[in-house]
Amino acid sequence: MNDEIQKILVLGSGAIGCFYGARLAKAGLEVSFVVRSDFEAVAQGGIHIHSYEGDFHITPAQVVARPEDYQGQADLVLVATKVLAEIDLPGLLAPLVHPKLKVLLVQNGIEIEAPLAAAYPGLPILSAIAFVGVGRTGPGQVHHQLKGNLEVGAYPGGFGPELDQVMACLLKTGLEVKRSEDICLSRWKKLIWNGAFNPVSVLTQANTEQMLQNPRTEALLRKIMFEVVALARAKGYDLEDRLVEQNLSVTYKMPPYKTSMLLDFEAHRHLETEAILGNPLKIARSLQVPVPHLETLAALLELLAQVKKP
Amino acid sequence: MNDEIQKILVLGSGAIGCFYGARLAKAGLEVSFVVRSDFEAVAQGGIHIHSYEGDFHITPAQVVARPEDYQGQADLVLVATKVLAEIDLPGLLAPLVHPKLKVLLVQNGIEIEAPLAAAYPGLPILSAIAFVGVGRTGPGQVHHQLKGNLEVGAYPGGFGPELDQVMACLLKTGLEVKRSEDICLSRWKKLIWNGAFNPVSVLTQANTEQMLQNPRTEALLRKIMFEVVALARAKGYDLEDRLVEQNLSVTYKMPPYKTSMLLDFEAHRHLETEAILGNPLKIARSLQVPVPHLETLAALLELLAQVKKP
Repeated sequence: MNDEIQKILVLGSGAIGCFYGARLAKAGLEVSFVVRSDFEAVAQGGIHIHSYEGDFHITPAQVVARPEDYQGQADLVLVATKVLAEIDLPGLLAPLVHPKLKVLLVQNGIEIEAPLAAAYPGLPILSAIAFVGVGRTGPGQVHHQLKGNLEVGAYPGGFGPELDQVMACLLKTGLEVKRSEDICLSRWKKLIWNGAFNPVSVLTQANTEQMLQNPRTEALLRKIMFEVVALARAKGYDLEDRLVEQNLSVTYKMPPYKTSMLLDFEAHRHLETEAILGNPLKIARSLQVPVPHLETLAALLELLAQVKKP
Repeated sequence: MNDEIQKILVLGSGAIGCFYGARLAKAGLEVSFVVRSDFEAVAQGGIHIHSYEGDFHITPAQVVARPEDYQGQADLVLVATKVLAEIDLPGLLAPLVHPKLKVLLVQNGIEIEAPLAAAYPGLPILSAIAFVGVGRTGPGQVHHQLKGNLEVGAYPGGFGPELDQVMACLLKTGLEVKRSEDICLSRWKKLIWNGAFNPVSVLTQANTEQMLQNPRTEALLRKIMFEVVALARAKGYDLEDRLVEQNLSVTYKMPPYKTSMLLDFEAHRHLETEAILGNPLKIARSLQVPVPHLETLAALLELLAQVKKP
């Protein structure tokens, strides 16, 4: 089993990176972290997970401030940074790339794999969507409230040995991990909800219930979702119209809920506008698909984030 | 000169109502005010105008809390309330209507005259757009910073003796008053700017300079303006495309400026969403003109105002 994943380097020490990294460490893997702003705290105190399933603490194999400081070769780099225009992921990965490296992106949005694929043509890229309720409560401190399911696929699609290896590694955590044959399609499906509820929640400062109870806003959410569906179809992903009603009805059944983007906004953190809206808009432009609602949201959100920047 | 306007009742004691009412009183007319929340202060202390042209103070002929408390017959009711769904203007005017009454609306938005015209078929309705920089600084206290020009027309259009009488009355103030043959067209022209900059400024909390400097937002403003132009044309008002660039270039030349709607929002006051966006959307629906940008703004703004309601 030469190709078994043993050494993992986690990039990004937000809630997602800390949570999955800690679960992998707890499962016996050798997990290290690249930690920027929280370096001192994590280097000294490790990572604490306060979970509804029981609290635990892990001590990383290595804690480094920059990827180039990592000692040895990682089998897998787990990328859990935000998707922001100012983060140069190919550049960050440069010191870590070797012939047997695999990269797993646990991030939001669509087409987020493209820059990496373009920079490193032979690099196996795995891509995952996280269904989890976690929040950062302090440096290296995470509150885990809900699930931890992952949907994982190979980029740009299909199956292969690298996907099997990463699946095997992730399954050691005991979390539910689903294999996706077309993770890009899954990302588009998730964008139906994210592209509508996330931006609208920030611009209106409303929770899901407030958004759905206002008839004008509910109609707007529906229109945004249909734009995403139409855009995905133009791009060749066969999303069905009924997904719109499905997403709405699921949300109607949820307790009132603040989106992650609204939480980021309220905490003056960066918003993932580009992954959620910017990339779809680029595709819309190149395919000449009209997306006036998405376009309006993107312009408003970008300026609001600029004006409110601390 | 039986038809000369002598007695004026001002409805609405915000900055606009106080300013024009006070200027008319200063010009020798008998001006009374209907004042709701500021009743005590205005009844006791009158109205104070702090102006770049010189401060002055007036004592109203009457200060009443409700229109039905007004003694006598007004020649002119000057309406300067906000245009809000919850203000029933025909109902407010009911105790004041008599065969010689004229009404002058100094308000924002389009189609704001329609409810009054429907309720009182014979009533002469004059309609004015104010180009003025005034702000309420306290009960009966107004800060006058810029101009005071009015554009006045008869509703729904044309000229007539009532317009002449109101013009003659307004000109006594010494302010610049322009006669408009088609005030509805003028309102649509003003909506090009208001429909774009006002909603976008609230949703992004940005001033005019910040809105124009962000390329995505600048592009959005342009698209909103073209939607207004297209809608006006569908309604039969011949607005030219070049008005869009004209509105932008005027704004580029202005010093950075917070829109009145953003000031209202920051002060937790009601927003005139219906006059600025709601009425255009109704027209768009009835004429089946697509206005996705306006629609998005209206839905976002309505919910934001709801969520932020004090």
